[in-house]
Amino acid sequence: MTRVAIIGAGPSGLAQLRAFQSAKEKGADIPEIVCFEKQSNWGGLWNYTWRTGLDEYGEPVHCSMYRYLWSNGPKEGLEFADYSFEEHFGKPIASYPPRAVLFDYIEGRVKKAGVRDMIRFNSPVRHVTYDDEEGVFRVTVKDHEKDEEYTEDFDYVIVASGHFSTPNVPDFEGLDAFNGRVLHAHDFRDALEFKDKDILIIGTSYSAEDIGSQCWKYGCKSVTVSHRTAPMGYKWPDNWEEVPLLQKVEKNTATFKDGSQKHVDAIILCTGYLHHFPFMAEDLKLKTNNRLYPVNLYNGVVWEYNPKLMYLGMQDQWYTFNMFDAQAWYARDVVMGRIDLPSQEEMHADIDHWREVEDNLEDDYAAIRFQGDYTMRLMALTDYPDFDVSESNEAFFQWKKHKKENIMTFRNHGYKSALTGTMAPEHHTPWKDALDDSLESYLQTES
Amino acid sequence: MTRVAIIGAGPSGLAQLRAFQSAKEKGADIPEIVCFEKQSNWGGLWNYTWRTGLDEYGEPVHCSMYRYLWSNGPKEGLEFADYSFEEHFGKPIASYPPRAVLFDYIEGRVKKAGVRDMIRFNSPVRHVTYDDEEGVFRVTVKDHEKDEEYTEDFDYVIVASGHFSTPNVPDFEGLDAFNGRVLHAHDFRDALEFKDKDILIIGTSYSAEDIGSQCWKYGCKSVTVSHRTAPMGYKWPDNWEEVPLLQKVEKNTATFKDGSQKHVDAIILCTGYLHHFPFMAEDLKLKTNNRLYPVNLYNGVVWEYNPKLMYLGMQDQWYTFNMFDAQAWYARDVVMGRIDLPSQEEMHADIDHWREVEDNLEDDYAAIRFQGDYTMRLMALTDYPDFDVSESNEAFFQWKKHKKENIMTFRNHGYKSALTGTMAPEHHTPWKDALDDSLESYLQTES
Repeated sequence: MTRVAIIGAGPSGLAQLRAFQSAKEKGADIPEIVCFEKQSNWGGLWNYTWRTGLDEYGEPVHCSMYRYLWSNGPKEGLEFADYSFEEHFGKPIASYPPRAVLFDYIEGRVKKAGVRDMIRFNSPVRHVTYDDEEGVFRVTVKDHEKDEEYTEDFDYVIVASGHFSTPNVPDFEGLDAFNGRVLHAHDFRDALEFKDKDILIIGTSYSAEDIGSQCWKYGCKSVTVSHRTAPMGYKWPDNWEEVPLLQKVEKNTATFKDGSQKHVDAIILCTGYLHHFPFMAEDLKLKTNNRLYPVNLYNGVVWEYNPKLMYLGMQDQWYTFNMFDAQAWYARDVVMGRIDLPSQEEMHADIDHWREVEDNLEDDYAAIRFQGDYTMRLMALTDYPDFDVSESNEAFFQWKKHKKENIMTFRNHGYKSALTGTMAPEHHTPWKDALDDSLESYLQTES
Repeated sequence: MTRVAIIGAGPSGLAQLRAFQSAKEKGADIPEIVCFEKQSNWGGLWNYTWRTGLDEYGEPVHCSMYRYLWSNGPKEGLEFADYSFEEHFGKPIASYPPRAVLFDYIEGRVKKAGVRDMIRFNSPVRHVTYDDEEGVFRVTVKDHEKDEEYTEDFDYVIVASGHFSTPNVPDFEGLDAFNGRVLHAHDFRDALEFKDKDILIIGTSYSAEDIGSQCWKYGCKSVTVSHRTAPMGYKWPDNWEEVPLLQKVEKNTATFKDGSQKHVDAIILCTGYLHHFPFMAEDLKLKTNNRLYPVNLYNGVVWEYNPKLMYLGMQDQWYTFNMFDAQAWYARDVVMGRIDLPSQEEMHADIDHWREVEDNLEDDYAAIRFQGDYTMRLMALTDYPDFDVSESNEAFFQWKKHKKENIMTFRNHGYKSALTGTMAPEHHTPWKDALDDSLESYLQTES
């Protein structure tokens, strides 16, 4: 029987499990599926832990999640096409759910699908190689519950381990003698640690914007954001400043490229993440920066040099859960022989084509459309339920407009679901005043 | 030619390089040696970095070192028998050197020996297996400089990667909602982060004692140390308290097993380390707790099931650098055929014998003598220079007495070198007032 290994049980890996299960539900014979998950529960990044660095088994902590996180994009941009928010919660909810609400939603679909027994938890994959002679992948796995390592053969491997877990951590002069905490966003957990502190953030990514906003919301004294190329340029609160790149720190004084200086108590490096697959043999390893169309992946999924290997969710992302779904349904149909792949040369040329298109995208709006179109193309190849991508694009466009209007109030807006057509209700409390991020609080209809 | 892989270039790995180089110096033909080091420099734990969690290549950070660390035991207990402190510094120095001074000393010997070109830096070992048919080890290594993985064969493997780098991190109720930083000692870097804070330390190990003392020295508001079995029982300062095991935290309130409560701003888990060798195949992997005589290692070094595999420094440690030396000289002589090993059954029986002796040791004084005797037995088997172990034992006994007298002044004492017979001078400034931990400051003759 064909055997498929899925690495990771986060949104991408779970999408893959759901894809196979949905085929089975419709009467198809599906392969044997084994999903290896390093953590003790599913949900990937949405599975919060207080741990940082290494976990109870000495494994790098996967979690980059922090307390009080609310979605930084509208839920209307990520809704599963086969499982609406309304179906899960039994009523319309507001557009920027906190972590616990999104975790509940992700879990709801896979609980309903009944795929949990396909997952081996506490099971990091150590080593994946391909045996050319036998035409199989050798997958070596650590079972932490039994404290044993074992190797099994698989016909297909689908890597769904994410790319927001291994921090990219640059050095700056003086960090080795800084009198306070230096951390990467990956290790950020509770904004209250920084109450009444002057914090310095390096970077202009979503992490920078959101962790700064969190610290501001929970009472830090000031936020200074240092950029390499350009400031984010939002209308920030009075105690928030954007400055050029950090040049050095001496004790608690930071000096920037323009010579300006600032007292800082803590430094948070919001400097992005690495695509990191230490468990993949060199000839199977995706090596890419964070972009919409990574190298070597046909249709953004299939490893061109060995199409029995696939990667999910390795793109820079506007679209997330629903794009992972489209990829997972596509990967499933490749495995099940429902989709024929062209020659390696043709795949390579196709990848090159789309990378060139990406390179010529004018702005973020074009990038959103590009990824929406990509998702649509994939959806058209499988039985993943269609949804109105232009409506989701629209939610993203509105989101960007609302952020520009006011970066501290954009989460108070609501958008229209591309699935149900329902307009999201306003949340009962403005984001900046809603200090309780629990599911119970968020789902209250009245404040 | 015989090929030997050494994993790690910390005190143990460097001892191994020095052992081979010293044989060569005396005219022997030595095997080809390759030392793989994950970090970009040698020194192991003594190579300080501000980094925590994962490093610039996504590798777990090896460093558990923190700023302002002074040796917590007398240097007279760890002096290299072939390279005295007096030879290195050109004069007698005080007994509890800060990190930079010890790093300089460690580096001095290997610089003089000229062994650096045997080391491949930025090269974590990914996978070690043994090929029974060919009788060689397959060692797979990541070269981060070239971003390539490669595999080479070796006749011997010597694991010297340490066991104070992978934290043992237990969970406690409420940590996931604690309003402040929770960290393991492994991630502790600068005590000034905790100035004016109420800190809670879990554990009674050296880390607990020393990190608490550091935080006290650098101005934390209070230290609370929570123990599982028994308090450390030193005469602590007024703002230092020992309490039973932590039961739970709610927001910033910690509750202990006796029902007492305390406000805490940060929680530091000083809960020890794991022997962790994810890169070793299951049948080659040492699995032990932290004890004086680990399982499966003949003479504390030789893997009984395959004597071409050796482990250095895997003991719980009173003795350190000089014990690693004795082990490295012994391992060298096993590799070079100067020492014959008994049968596996005899090795196993011998290991069992010493483990039983260990199990019946009465107290710390007996444990120190046990490890001193072990080191002497090894030394007698090789040409490692003899030193007067009873003198080193004596330094440890005095040290324990001085700690008991006053835990905040013990580092002001000096001891006699077992090598040179010189009595260490007093340091120019009492430890608690010496805030500058630089090499320059420490070596000043007058304050």
